[in-house]
Amino acid sequence: MRGYTGDKEAYLKRLRRIEGQIRGLQRMVENDEYCIDVLTQISAATKALQSVSIGLLDEHLKHCVTEAIAEGGRDAEEKVREASEAIARLVRS
Amino acid sequence: MRGYTGDKEAYLKRLRRIEGQIRGLQRMVENDEYCIDVLTQISAATKALQSVSIGLLDEHLKHCVTEAIAEGGRDAEEKVREASEAIARLVRS
Amino acid sequence: MRGYTGDKEAYLKRLRRIEGQIRGLQRMVENDEYCIDVLTQISAATKALQSVSIGLLDEHLKHCVTEAIAEGGRDAEEKVREASEAIARLVRS
Amino acid sequence: MRGYTGDKEAYLKRLRRIEGQIRGLQRMVENDEYCIDVLTQISAATKALQSVSIGLLDEHLKHCVTEAIAEGGRDAEEKVREASEAIARLVRS
Repeated sequence: MRGYTGDKEAYLKRLRRIEGQIRGLQRMVENDEYCIDVLTQISAATKALQSVSIGLLDEHLKHCVTEAIAEGGRDAEEKVREASEAIARLVRS
Repeated sequence: MRGYTGDKEAYLKRLRRIEGQIRGLQRMVENDEYCIDVLTQISAATKALQSVSIGLLDEHLKHCVTEAIAEGGRDAEEKVREASEAIARLVRS
Repeated sequence: MRGYTGDKEAYLKRLRRIEGQIRGLQRMVENDEYCIDVLTQISAATKALQSVSIGLLDEHLKHCVTEAIAEGGRDAEEKVREASEAIARLVRS
Repeated sequence: MRGYTGDKEAYLKRLRRIEGQIRGLQRMVENDEYCIDVLTQISAATKALQSVSIGLLDEHLKHCVTEAIAEGGRDAEEKVREASEAIARLVRS
């Protein structure tokens, strides 16, 4: 069980749509489509991926981190540290 | 008392340094310095600001959010929701 | 012929690798893998996509924009405006 | 003369406003204001800085890069390379 388990199907659907966008990008490059149009599609796929991360992080804080803190102990600190590192990676990417 | 209170002086020092970078940018523009050099300085100031946010968010999770969850109740959910929204703003900015 | 035509195979290879990363993400979610590990993979795919955009934009400036300017006329202005808009979308995504 | 010279006053005004935002952030931290409110202000300052970069880069392409290309020669390539590197720094910051 993970924080996102309840929305698993919704996340899979979003990831499949992103996979479709990446395959669409390959077709665009194969067909020598205009660079700017390719870039617009990449921006769309990037935003879709970011939005999946924001959702996952929200679920992670709501479930995994909240439970670890509510139970107390060392694991809570570790979970918060991990979440902070994941946030830093997202902000910098 | 806030999550960052313990490091308040360190945060103020970083913000003063960023203020200095922004004033430096004004001097560069006043002296008609080369666009690319101005852009390099803006990237540095942006990274410094992002790094302050990442630090503040980490303190916020470690202190405010952790305390709210440990105490339980409605406030915990609200704090997690707020943190998630702040993360979304950072990732998208 | 597009600015990226010379490196078309290299771009396709990178996009196929990103498609593989997105499919890997789907497997991770299907197997209920740990949220933080999923987030780390999303950051990697996002960086890979950004790096493709940076490359495409560089080719676009080197070829399409440079040619339009060298030929002069209205099209040059349009090409520069378009490139600026694409840059703004990338910076903001 | 730089690409942004025509809008110099407008850029200085924007940078002074950003300097004011950074000083406002220092006051917020000094007064122990709520972390999330500080983060909201940092996001606003970051977006304002990004918007200055996007503007400067646009002017740079429209003027410096366009002129270098129109004049032809080695300098044009160098200018495009420099612009691409500046874009990469912006996208990654």
